[in-house]
Amino acid sequence: MHFAEPLALRSGASIRAYDLSYETYGQLNAAKSNAVLICHALNASHHVAGVYLDDSGQVKPRSEGWWDNMIGPGKPLDTDRFFVIGVNNLGSCFGSTGPMQTNPDTGAVYGADFPVVTVQDWVNAQARLLDALGIQTLAAVMGGSLGGMQTLSWTLQYPERVRHALVIASAPNLTAENIAFNEVARRAIVTDPDFHGVHFYRYGVLPKRGLRIARMIGHITYLSDDVMNEKFGRQLRRSADASADGAAPYKYSTQEVEFEIESYLRYQGDKFAEYFDANTYLLITRALDYFDPASEFGGDLSRALAKASAKFLLVSFTTDWRFSPARSREIVKALLANQRDVSYAEIDAPHGHDAFLLDDPRYMGVVRSYFESKVTV
Amino acid sequence: MHFAEPLALRSGASIRAYDLSYETYGQLNAAKSNAVLICHALNASHHVAGVYLDDSGQVKPRSEGWWDNMIGPGKPLDTDRFFVIGVNNLGSCFGSTGPMQTNPDTGAVYGADFPVVTVQDWVNAQARLLDALGIQTLAAVMGGSLGGMQTLSWTLQYPERVRHALVIASAPNLTAENIAFNEVARRAIVTDPDFHGVHFYRYGVLPKRGLRIARMIGHITYLSDDVMNEKFGRQLRRSADASADGAAPYKYSTQEVEFEIESYLRYQGDKFAEYFDANTYLLITRALDYFDPASEFGGDLSRALAKASAKFLLVSFTTDWRFSPARSREIVKALLANQRDVSYAEIDAPHGHDAFLLDDPRYMGVVRSYFESKVTV
Repeated sequence: MHFAEPLALRSGASIRAYDLSYETYGQLNAAKSNAVLICHALNASHHVAGVYLDDSGQVKPRSEGWWDNMIGPGKPLDTDRFFVIGVNNLGSCFGSTGPMQTNPDTGAVYGADFPVVTVQDWVNAQARLLDALGIQTLAAVMGGSLGGMQTLSWTLQYPERVRHALVIASAPNLTAENIAFNEVARRAIVTDPDFHGVHFYRYGVLPKRGLRIARMIGHITYLSDDVMNEKFGRQLRRSADASADGAAPYKYSTQEVEFEIESYLRYQGDKFAEYFDANTYLLITRALDYFDPASEFGGDLSRALAKASAKFLLVSFTTDWRFSPARSREIVKALLANQRDVSYAEIDAPHGHDAFLLDDPRYMGVVRSYFESKVTV
Repeated sequence: MHFAEPLALRSGASIRAYDLSYETYGQLNAAKSNAVLICHALNASHHVAGVYLDDSGQVKPRSEGWWDNMIGPGKPLDTDRFFVIGVNNLGSCFGSTGPMQTNPDTGAVYGADFPVVTVQDWVNAQARLLDALGIQTLAAVMGGSLGGMQTLSWTLQYPERVRHALVIASAPNLTAENIAFNEVARRAIVTDPDFHGVHFYRYGVLPKRGLRIARMIGHITYLSDDVMNEKFGRQLRRSADASADGAAPYKYSTQEVEFEIESYLRYQGDKFAEYFDANTYLLITRALDYFDPASEFGGDLSRALAKASAKFLLVSFTTDWRFSPARSREIVKALLANQRDVSYAEIDAPHGHDAFLLDDPRYMGVVRSYFESKVTV
């Protein structure tokens, strides 16, 4: 969808014109009352559900939407009942206007000229998409992690347009530690010589070293210590060579892979560096850092959330140390202080922050029953 | 101290000759029964206590030993009573033979030729230093973090030479998450183009980008989320500019410092990259990864620790998520299974892993009373 009207950004800058990539699933009903908007997190896209087919009608490998376990016919968010919209955020690298694309004002790639965008800017851009689709009110907005922040921001920026908000594995702002991890990732990218002070597109190179490090750090914070120990532990890469007495047959090398966890992280880093845009990584981590609705209210989250009129479901996961249950409880408490209708589930899942993307039956059950019992169309 | 005899290493390699830098504090008694060996962690040295003076007899700025709060006359480890030895480990970069120094076999800088060293190798080298000093039995070995691992290894490699072992903020091995953080730090160093495949000394450059990232990651894991929030929170770098309505006066930049925590981490990274050797960082993090005394006993730590005959004090800190109290309790449990004499203190300190270097009065009190009441000379 092309938008020809400029979008004023929170930074004071504006984008003159832009495109948003989006996908929809299910049918918008006649009353236009069954639309659910899905907000994505750091490295995801508008492709939230379903698969892509190739020219011969075969399913493309690994083309499942990132929340395909959650969204589809008969799934917890049932597309037989709801019209679901996935949208790629401004500044991302999956089709919506972002730093890799051409700046219409200059005819050159945006690169460093792409303005810093915030959660609020994304929500404003998403609202325009809904305008263009003729949807005034959303049955629900839903997102995990950074997507949960957008969901929360929707209830504050457009309270009259959101009936339900599903905020999953999220937080009212980043802690110092969260910001710290983002900053290390950004420094890894920015100090990669192939970043060329943001102008790497011109040089035909990618700051892959930095992206790899950024992704490896990210992955550590997405998983719990427990699940890492269970999946990888201290297992060596080539367990077939294990000596008979059980002693570790180390290679005694600082650079070769010794442990399975190293192999896993390197693989994740390499894969990510092939497809993700470095400037997008900087922009999106910064949007995370900046999000803090309470800051305009002297840090008082209850006052900040007074504007919200939606009904809420919050879900957190016990082993999520990136956005711990305590952070979700802050939001719950602030909403209750405003006498809002809030459901809250704390799921005892071992998978850390990643749990919001996984198939825990209790988690899926909570979302399913919320949509079935509370969200009318 | 120069050692002319080759040291056989666990990897199968050996070092033909080497030097160890060490310092001593207090007086060795006639019976040579009051010696306490201090083992250092990742980035520390033999300079554990006291200060250095310049030529005019003035105290050099920032020359305090890294455990000066713990060790000295009248301090918890009282040098009026004990003869304390600090030693820089093989492969480190503070005077002992390491990758920055000349390989006598080739006349060139060791660099990549410096062999991978393990905790066990360090302990063997330290034992030779004690031989040279004429000390057969240590009143105690003491160390925090990686230093605690060396302490534990002393009780297994030379049980008859250690009367007391003080293992502080340590662990019986690294978890997958611990290894993961080490691996990201190593990849940041190794993929820095200025690393030149380990040969950076020849090029007159240092892989400072990688070292900075490594140190930033390290710092995050040394601190607790709580203490980071207390010290830095979401405080902006230039709070003087805060706007009147309390809204955050962001710069809207992905590369400039916005938050205090970013400034702190960048400063720590820059400082570290100036003085620490990149190859040493690789070697020492690998020694951490490899340490796992239970591995030769099918993972059974109780069996692994059966050899130890020392009396033990273990200390952990509640907010230490790098080496959590649960890891110390594993050691305590395994020692108790062997009917060993074990004291254990779990200190409710907010400072994370760094607490072992800080001045918590309960922590200092525990160590003081252990030395006073249990460690005879």
